[in-house]
Amino acid sequence: MFSQLVEAVGAEHVVAGDDPSVADLCADEALGVPPGKPAYVVCPGDRDEVVAVVRTARAAGASVTARGAGTGLSGAATPDDGAVLVVFARMDRVLEIDPVDGVAVVQPGVALEVLDAAAGEHGLTYPVHPGEQSASLGGTVATNAGGMRAVRYGVTRAHVLGLEAVLADGSLVRTGGRLAKLSTGYDLTQLLVGSEGTLALVTEVVVRLHPALPARGTVLAPFSSAEEVTAAVGRVVGAGLAPTVCEYLDGPTMRAICTNAGLSLGLPEELLDADHLLVELAGRRQERVDEDAEELADVLSALGASEVFDLPAGAARRLVEAREKAFWAVKAAGADEIVDLVVPRSAMAAFLARARAAGDAHDARVLGCGHAGDGNVHLAVFQPDPERLAQTLHDVFAAGIALGGAVSGEHGVGRAKAHHLAELGDPVALDVLRRVRAALDPEGTLNPGCSIR
Amino acid sequence: MFSQLVEAVGAEHVVAGDDPSVADLCADEALGVPPGKPAYVVCPGDRDEVVAVVRTARAAGASVTARGAGTGLSGAATPDDGAVLVVFARMDRVLEIDPVDGVAVVQPGVALEVLDAAAGEHGLTYPVHPGEQSASLGGTVATNAGGMRAVRYGVTRAHVLGLEAVLADGSLVRTGGRLAKLSTGYDLTQLLVGSEGTLALVTEVVVRLHPALPARGTVLAPFSSAEEVTAAVGRVVGAGLAPTVCEYLDGPTMRAICTNAGLSLGLPEELLDADHLLVELAGRRQERVDEDAEELADVLSALGASEVFDLPAGAARRLVEAREKAFWAVKAAGADEIVDLVVPRSAMAAFLARARAAGDAHDARVLGCGHAGDGNVHLAVFQPDPERLAQTLHDVFAAGIALGGAVSGEHGVGRAKAHHLAELGDPVALDVLRRVRAALDPEGTLNPGCSIR
Repeated sequence: MFSQLVEAVGAEHVVAGDDPSVADLCADEALGVPPGKPAYVVCPGDRDEVVAVVRTARAAGASVTARGAGTGLSGAATPDDGAVLVVFARMDRVLEIDPVDGVAVVQPGVALEVLDAAAGEHGLTYPVHPGEQSASLGGTVATNAGGMRAVRYGVTRAHVLGLEAVLADGSLVRTGGRLAKLSTGYDLTQLLVGSEGTLALVTEVVVRLHPALPARGTVLAPFSSAEEVTAAVGRVVGAGLAPTVCEYLDGPTMRAICTNAGLSLGLPEELLDADHLLVELAGRRQERVDEDAEELADVLSALGASEVFDLPAGAARRLVEAREKAFWAVKAAGADEIVDLVVPRSAMAAFLARARAAGDAHDARVLGCGHAGDGNVHLAVFQPDPERLAQTLHDVFAAGIALGGAVSGEHGVGRAKAHHLAELGDPVALDVLRRVRAALDPEGTLNPGCSIR
Repeated sequence: MFSQLVEAVGAEHVVAGDDPSVADLCADEALGVPPGKPAYVVCPGDRDEVVAVVRTARAAGASVTARGAGTGLSGAATPDDGAVLVVFARMDRVLEIDPVDGVAVVQPGVALEVLDAAAGEHGLTYPVHPGEQSASLGGTVATNAGGMRAVRYGVTRAHVLGLEAVLADGSLVRTGGRLAKLSTGYDLTQLLVGSEGTLALVTEVVVRLHPALPARGTVLAPFSSAEEVTAAVGRVVGAGLAPTVCEYLDGPTMRAICTNAGLSLGLPEELLDADHLLVELAGRRQERVDEDAEELADVLSALGASEVFDLPAGAARRLVEAREKAFWAVKAAGADEIVDLVVPRSAMAAFLARARAAGDAHDARVLGCGHAGDGNVHLAVFQPDPERLAQTLHDVFAAGIALGGAVSGEHGVGRAKAHHLAELGDPVALDVLRRVRAALDPEGTLNPGCSIR
């Protein structure tokens, strides 16, 4: 296989999987997924090279795993042993920003921050901010990444209009286009988004851009319970204020991210331990945002907020950024696993209570924050004993599913949660998805240990 | 099969397909698709009855076609000969409006106007307005219906969060839920949306609702060419004004819909024949909408609008409604076919020019209007000779595809356009979609003459 891979991408872009120089590429940021042992790590430079790599691997009976920036949190970019790991670092160009169509055409290795900056030069933005702006666009397409701004703009899925991708048999497929809407057969674009490298390797993406909104306002409201925060979220979203951020943070998480970011909000000690709702508004005109922020403060006060803080722009920006980096804070604090289960927005408090009860039952500490506007709860679970950790996670996932939730809101299933999905998902739906996977990849070439299995 | 169908749904809900009482149910509003000759027409009352009907039909080797309100424009609800036609008229309940989760749970036979009214009681709206508010929710899910407001809110796909559906083998599947976001395996919900009854029969839907926006402003701007309108659209959408309507109407279409609606806008004769851009803005506060409408008028004047008319609320509402009913106007005028091809927003004028040239080449009259913000062009084609009509349509579709477009933006493929898609779609993508269809419906039970084939 080595010589064919060299032929496909050039000798300088093929490395043996056990070479120390590629050790960091054999895992992503998932806490509970050990690094894989790929046979080779390759770095193709264009779509034709990706085609050649997939064909070579398939002919050799090796599996293929795609890797973007490796910032994923569920092990979807961690290769199966013996795999060819395809790293998209060289395919990192923003090919076009088209302000008339309102789209960008990009290669999968482009970092989100690079795309957003390129869009910014045209007064536009790519608003998917999954918490790590060094994430690659390809990786976020594979995982259907979300982030805080999804409450206003939707997740990655809502932005992908077209794809070029390499299928398991090495054929190149084109889906969608620069098309704002489409009703022309089953939506293959949407089938590939979130498929975590198990149906195709994406080689080009057309994404929708949005007008940049220069005006901002940020409000922090401590409540005396997660139930009050949950009740408030429905009102905030339902009022039509279109928040760009609508986050829940429990007291310990608020303390951890403030400490981690060296951030002092000037809140009284006792309020820092409260259950917090953080809301950011954005718009074209500052006076409207200020007016809306006042309206929002009135709503939150009426709903029982202990106080409502209109954060100054600098502190607001730093708090939002620190919240985006919460994963690093809980990782630094020694978290053993993180969970991004999604439940109906109204069920967030009930889920948090059950998750904490599950933690108590297994001596695990469970901290919570989350994209409250979306019901997407992020838990940090601290329990170093593997067996008790597994029991805690099982009970947490079962509690979420029982409340109408699903295994992942935005991180994906990957390797970390494939067994939870297999156990807790709708069995008929899983059977359908297995049939779809088998129809597209009958030999199991693409990322076989990941997602639906 | 008759006795089993009677057992499944009750004798009063099974009618032989050649019974005159069901003649109107054997076709939808597609102009070029003749009525089908179903073996039976059945009207199930709940999900279990749908399961029993599908199992019965499959065991008897009959195909199954689902029918909502029959307002579709591509023949997707027209049964194959010998089929069991499943009419969802009895499954017409709004089961729940949940303002905290911001969702509605509805049966497929609910009319859009009924759902929107129910949402309105909670200060919410279901903004998918495909031009015919008597359309059923199930039908709009099947076709991924769009409409004028899609430029702001997105098409049906953007609103469907969860489904309950009956697969070809009669098993019941549940997908998604009351979940604002999801990254848990391939998105089966999105695979079923737009599949035109070929992968499953939907029995329950969870849709996202939006806050109702009470304030409105409507601007009509005649331009001297479709090119100018196209250029203006990119600026209007890119400016962040978030229009709820952004429509193109050519002169003849404007005349036709004004005549049909008995509507006089008070425009000078010579302006009526112009290429028109119609933009509606909506918001929470009238003063902001008024301010934005002034900004919009300035933008349009600077971009070459002959004049900019700020329409009074009554005239605006009537013009928007008349535009929504444009299909009936062109049908009344004797159109032989309609097309809803979608192209990149920037390519609308180029496509219109090529479509008219195709019409000229085959002595066909081609009128154009369309959802300009989405590049979704609606053409009315007048050419009574079937062969010349077919030639015109072929050239029109080929021209659109050559510009990066697709066969349908919102009406669906159905029976009317299945051969155009088979000829002009990406062959690799079509092969994938055929494999998906075969994986889910290996015996070809569900709507075999429709969509991907």
